[in-house]
Amino acid sequence: MTFPVIGMVGGGQLARMTHEAGIPLGVRFRLLSDTPQDSAAQVVRDVVVGDYRDLDTLRDFARGCDVITFDHEHVPTEHLRVLEAEGIPVRPGPDALVHAQDKGVMRARLTEIGIPCPRHRIVADPADVARFAAETGGWPVVLKTVRGGYDGKGVWVVRSEEEAAAPFRAGVAVLAEEKVDFVRELAANVVRSPHGQAVAYPVVESIQVNGVCDTVIAPAPDLSPELSGQAQELALTVARELGVVGHLAVELFETGDGRILVNELAMRPHNSGHWTQDGAVTSQFANHLRAVLDLPLGDPRPREPWTVMVNVLGGDYPDMYQGYLHCMARDPRLKIHMYGKDVKPGRKVGHVTTYGDDLADVRERAAHAAAYLRGTITE
Amino acid sequence: MTFPVIGMVGGGQLARMTHEAGIPLGVRFRLLSDTPQDSAAQVVRDVVVGDYRDLDTLRDFARGCDVITFDHEHVPTEHLRVLEAEGIPVRPGPDALVHAQDKGVMRARLTEIGIPCPRHRIVADPADVARFAAETGGWPVVLKTVRGGYDGKGVWVVRSEEEAAAPFRAGVAVLAEEKVDFVRELAANVVRSPHGQAVAYPVVESIQVNGVCDTVIAPAPDLSPELSGQAQELALTVARELGVVGHLAVELFETGDGRILVNELAMRPHNSGHWTQDGAVTSQFANHLRAVLDLPLGDPRPREPWTVMVNVLGGDYPDMYQGYLHCMARDPRLKIHMYGKDVKPGRKVGHVTTYGDDLADVRERAAHAAAYLRGTITE
Repeated sequence: MTFPVIGMVGGGQLARMTHEAGIPLGVRFRLLSDTPQDSAAQVVRDVVVGDYRDLDTLRDFARGCDVITFDHEHVPTEHLRVLEAEGIPVRPGPDALVHAQDKGVMRARLTEIGIPCPRHRIVADPADVARFAAETGGWPVVLKTVRGGYDGKGVWVVRSEEEAAAPFRAGVAVLAEEKVDFVRELAANVVRSPHGQAVAYPVVESIQVNGVCDTVIAPAPDLSPELSGQAQELALTVARELGVVGHLAVELFETGDGRILVNELAMRPHNSGHWTQDGAVTSQFANHLRAVLDLPLGDPRPREPWTVMVNVLGGDYPDMYQGYLHCMARDPRLKIHMYGKDVKPGRKVGHVTTYGDDLADVRERAAHAAAYLRGTITE
Repeated sequence: MTFPVIGMVGGGQLARMTHEAGIPLGVRFRLLSDTPQDSAAQVVRDVVVGDYRDLDTLRDFARGCDVITFDHEHVPTEHLRVLEAEGIPVRPGPDALVHAQDKGVMRARLTEIGIPCPRHRIVADPADVARFAAETGGWPVVLKTVRGGYDGKGVWVVRSEEEAAAPFRAGVAVLAEEKVDFVRELAANVVRSPHGQAVAYPVVESIQVNGVCDTVIAPAPDLSPELSGQAQELALTVARELGVVGHLAVELFETGDGRILVNELAMRPHNSGHWTQDGAVTSQFANHLRAVLDLPLGDPRPREPWTVMVNVLGGDYPDMYQGYLHCMARDPRLKIHMYGKDVKPGRKVGHVTTYGDDLADVRERAAHAAAYLRGTITE
């Protein structure tokens, strides 16, 4: 047998769901996890517990693998270069991944290749933020630490020079961006293989609550074919120009005047692509694996007119299993995806998807299930 | 968290695929496997290596579980009664499972509840087989050892008293059945929960080659709604009357004069239901788990006009991974399901499914992929 060993760095839910997608392929899955209790570590046979920030740990782990991929974007770029120099394929590679790790590098590169972004520049201090505000039409201004943010963390919307002080306290470079007056958020998800084959999923609408993704609707309702095509082409261009291998999520703002601007990039399976598990011919997880292994990619087309994903956040109920009875009985098409995580308020502990012909009905069913599991509603 | 622990006895591909289906549910999966290399043991975290025929091993394993279910039907009935007596739910329970373990018990019980079966009786010796032949219209006669057979093993089609000697050598009771003049084989698959909720999958056609399932077509082409309804009702009746919990596969003969007769029963996920992984709203594996956990069952409806499953048997090529490039490139909708087993000629090492609107096209794509992976064709 020459079935390859895939080394997955990080034991979160993305690794868990990638393992799930890899079981049918018969490939071997090796996990580097922070703890034996991490989401993916609960369901994978071959688990190495260790710290991905430690180069020796990473090298030891990688030696048993045919290719390395990631659950998150936090592995130091320089460590990845060492693995590559030792002949271990890293996918996506450090030259691509740095664009998902460092928002300053990302903005500079996207601008260079003509991809529309909000106006932006690296700012030195609060006074510099005030100058940026003056240059770009005034407050508010969005400030982001160039590294380390996710799910709304590491992002501030500030309305004055005084408010602009906080982001600088972390000692990380700070990027200022104009606050885009968007009508909604979209995501264009694509997968690209080392061969250069690429597939584009339907563009989805992503609805955030408190800076965290709440609902994803596939495809994005009432999106013009022109804008949909533009968004897919944009994502394919980014994947090609940045040399991405694997799944690339391009989070977008849609403006009132019919433009799209890039908000964020993620180079791994992404929350905006979870709907594909139940709603597309090939899931983002299966296609990420196929890309990482340089296999031909699977059909990204939707299987249903509408698929809706809603995240299940931790609420006041520690026991989400008891909600299964109600939710499964109410909607026999509902798919629950739990991550095996302890419930903490606001923490993403799972998601649900459902699908059908009638968008209002599909949204209601998905939202009800997520709220019921969380304990927000009880009937 | 009160997420339950499911104890799966047996480490074959059915356990592997049940684990895969259980990951999204967030339930914990504990495996009793003959070896650490068994198909399921390769992908499950919590593996106990031991012999299911040893009562102490089985009891130790079961103590850590909330419910016990099975990859196969070979666990001694008396062991299961001990577990039940100790308060551990066994699903399906021994009183149901015995009908899938002992073909003599199965035939007697089905006949008692009015389910149509081939004419049959337990036979004492080759001379008794000759008398059975005379009673039922002559040779050939089908002989089966009442316990231990599967995939054509333990089954003989004999044409004379001399040929009838072989089955008696095993020292196990032998059942004689008339050789049914069937036009094709069907399977009616249902899932039933302890609550008594049940769902019926579409009736499928199952095409055997050398006594081993080769192709399954869902739904069975040109099956009359009347016969389809009869088959589903029959399977639901068997599940209810025998007290089955979990997936029940009822293998059927369709006769030239439009009748259906029961061939075999299996009380676990079954090869004739593998198409549901990619072709039904809820897979047989997910519904088996839901039944075992007494959760509401998922929608069994097909998602596509036609779904075809073809088994991948071991051939002369030890390396099936190299066929992925061709197969995935040729059919972007193809789903490969490999079991992590060493390739041996004739051994089931995986299956493929694909789907679409045009049955001839779907069959061709599935058959091509299975033959290519096996090495029977090379272009």
